[in-house]
Amino acid sequence: MGKGPGAQAELRRRNFALVTHALAAGEDLTRAAVAAQVGLTRATVSTLVDELLAGGLVEERGARRPGTVGRPGTPLALADTGPAGVGAEIGVDHLAACVVDLRGTVRCRAETPAANRGRKAPDVLAELAELTARVTAAAREEDLHPVGTTVAVPGLVGHDRGAVLRAPNLGWEDVPVAAALGAGTIVENEANLGALAELWLGGHRGLADFVHVSAEIGIGAALVVEGRLFRGARGFAGELGHVPVRPDGPLCSCGATGCLETYAGEKALLRAAGLATGDDTEPGTGAGTPALRAAADAGDPRALRALDEAGAALGIALSGAVNLLDPQAVVIGGLLADLTPWLLPGVRRELATRVTDRQWRPENVVTSALGRDGVLRGAACSAVRTVLDDPASWITRNGPDSGSRA
Amino acid sequence: MGKGPGAQAELRRRNFALVTHALAAGEDLTRAAVAAQVGLTRATVSTLVDELLAGGLVEERGARRPGTVGRPGTPLALADTGPAGVGAEIGVDHLAACVVDLRGTVRCRAETPAANRGRKAPDVLAELAELTARVTAAAREEDLHPVGTTVAVPGLVGHDRGAVLRAPNLGWEDVPVAAALGAGTIVENEANLGALAELWLGGHRGLADFVHVSAEIGIGAALVVEGRLFRGARGFAGELGHVPVRPDGPLCSCGATGCLETYAGEKALLRAAGLATGDDTEPGTGAGTPALRAAADAGDPRALRALDEAGAALGIALSGAVNLLDPQAVVIGGLLADLTPWLLPGVRRELATRVTDRQWRPENVVTSALGRDGVLRGAACSAVRTVLDDPASWITRNGPDSGSRA
Repeated sequence: MGKGPGAQAELRRRNFALVTHALAAGEDLTRAAVAAQVGLTRATVSTLVDELLAGGLVEERGARRPGTVGRPGTPLALADTGPAGVGAEIGVDHLAACVVDLRGTVRCRAETPAANRGRKAPDVLAELAELTARVTAAAREEDLHPVGTTVAVPGLVGHDRGAVLRAPNLGWEDVPVAAALGAGTIVENEANLGALAELWLGGHRGLADFVHVSAEIGIGAALVVEGRLFRGARGFAGELGHVPVRPDGPLCSCGATGCLETYAGEKALLRAAGLATGDDTEPGTGAGTPALRAAADAGDPRALRALDEAGAALGIALSGAVNLLDPQAVVIGGLLADLTPWLLPGVRRELATRVTDRQWRPENVVTSALGRDGVLRGAACSAVRTVLDDPASWITRNGPDSGSRA
Repeated sequence: MGKGPGAQAELRRRNFALVTHALAAGEDLTRAAVAAQVGLTRATVSTLVDELLAGGLVEERGARRPGTVGRPGTPLALADTGPAGVGAEIGVDHLAACVVDLRGTVRCRAETPAANRGRKAPDVLAELAELTARVTAAAREEDLHPVGTTVAVPGLVGHDRGAVLRAPNLGWEDVPVAAALGAGTIVENEANLGALAELWLGGHRGLADFVHVSAEIGIGAALVVEGRLFRGARGFAGELGHVPVRPDGPLCSCGATGCLETYAGEKALLRAAGLATGDDTEPGTGAGTPALRAAADAGDPRALRALDEAGAALGIALSGAVNLLDPQAVVIGGLLADLTPWLLPGVRRELATRVTDRQWRPENVVTSALGRDGVLRGAACSAVRTVLDDPASWITRNGPDSGSRA
């Protein structure tokens, strides 16, 4: 009946992942609490936990007190040594890298300013490789073992997540990023990683269906549905920045007119606030956000009006998204999170008028607490989560008995 | 390791469903072809097929020729007797019911005009119960055994799919539809069923991610993602009719301004074509579509202009949807399918300008071949598919050995 070794291994993998993800989401859970939460028997959970303990992926809290080791009531935690994930970020004006442990805690971090727009891809990647090598070496000092690297990029990523297909703000087309950074490297769009960071680290319990909006290069957005990134049929979902707000509006960098980006993108915002001149068909770099924030803080009327109007445009585009997708919430993250005191009134006003679901509430629009760091942390966590998803494979390959742990 | 009877039963159910769905999608497959397609061994598939044959859910083609019964090379088909699904439809101006067999073929059908707007719900439901009783009796004559009924309604359906929460065009609020029609009844939004019909019966092979747009009451739409209906967090996804097209546009029935419905809804269309006067804040009934089609067929310039402008509005709203969701295709179905010769140019023009994915092609917008019948057929198929999803349960309860088959 198809119940061969393959099916057994699949079941074992699934049960292992249930346990590790429960430990990742909750604090100091006992074996009994894990069993109740994931719906497996206590005996099954105990067997799995024993293997995780032996493999060094889980530790017992308070286990140093004699006589308490292995008791069912002992609180468990994911280990803060062992497998780790490397996150790397290619921004228009900076490079960054960090390492997180199994718990998602940042353990090492490095960042450097870099004028990457129009710079040769091999030079950018060589500098990034240096940064990741530096944080990786520091992590090894702390008995952490990086299992993979995820690189956040401001552009479209190929289906195999190895190459950047197109990153207009870097001037890149078809750049094989993963190959330049070594085995175990995955490339991912920065807006997607910001959304995943919110899902994993954002602290909104039970939030599994949301639209995450950020601004870094232009307006970035990503959709999380049932706790997973919604990529679309070709991997291009989440282009909120090019949802039409006023179809006869200004020309956008994409060639269309009246896209959200022409109203709420950084360049358009700065221009409307009187903080920049010239054309706004370039989507910006995020560098002007502090100046805008300062002007709004000082009560500058042009800045306040610009932000309110951008909030309304964002609210119009999000109304369409909410009516189509019916998410639990909209999360404003990344650099945009710094501007929410002035953006949210407009956003909420439009949503209140335009969302057809009568249960929609203004409180369903929330601000992310992760800020600009979300993307980099999301990248590192996405690398280490491969171990949480399949701990048995890691133990087999790297556990204490394999002799290959390095 | 959690591999108790529950896990075994789950695996068995999954394998059974793989086989029945393969037979539902392909024609005259042999056991070997099914095995190759679903990735199970031939021995496993043969065992499952034997049970399906014994249970009367599958038959062998050409099995009447002596010596061919049970040979691995014998083509198989789902049975055209045995389990069947009942579909029922509550329209503003009609009621309908039908029965489909396991293959999805309509075997009995009944329809009656009925002015349901503002009519008392118990009266409507009593008349619908009469219709479904009539088609059910006719189906039993053909050795079909209805396993459940799905009722298509023009409104919002509650989470347990038993009641209509709100159907403004019927004047209904909180009507317990399922309870009135007996055990095994499920209620579903008509736009969702139209999309499922397209998925199951539409004949676009490999199409599993699409936006389905129809018009019956207002603009109806539904999203299919990875071969499943995308319902959203509260079950309200797919409200394309209330995506803003021009935020300062006409007042809509929903209370907002400039929604797609105010440009491409039936009332707005008829008015723009000079075929109706008065306000267009009512979303229409579909009754005016033939007149509009006739005017366009006759080359009436007002009708042609109205349709082109409605197509453009539809294209603007769909551009937002495509940029957000990245579907494989947009399918125009229901009554709107009759108008595609005049709507499609505007739709495709806007999508060509506004979709950021460079691989998007005008041919990705297709017309459904199912027409207005899609909703009713989708309802009946959704009822019978519960058997395809879990044939073993049906065999246990109703198979030849159970003694309870009636």
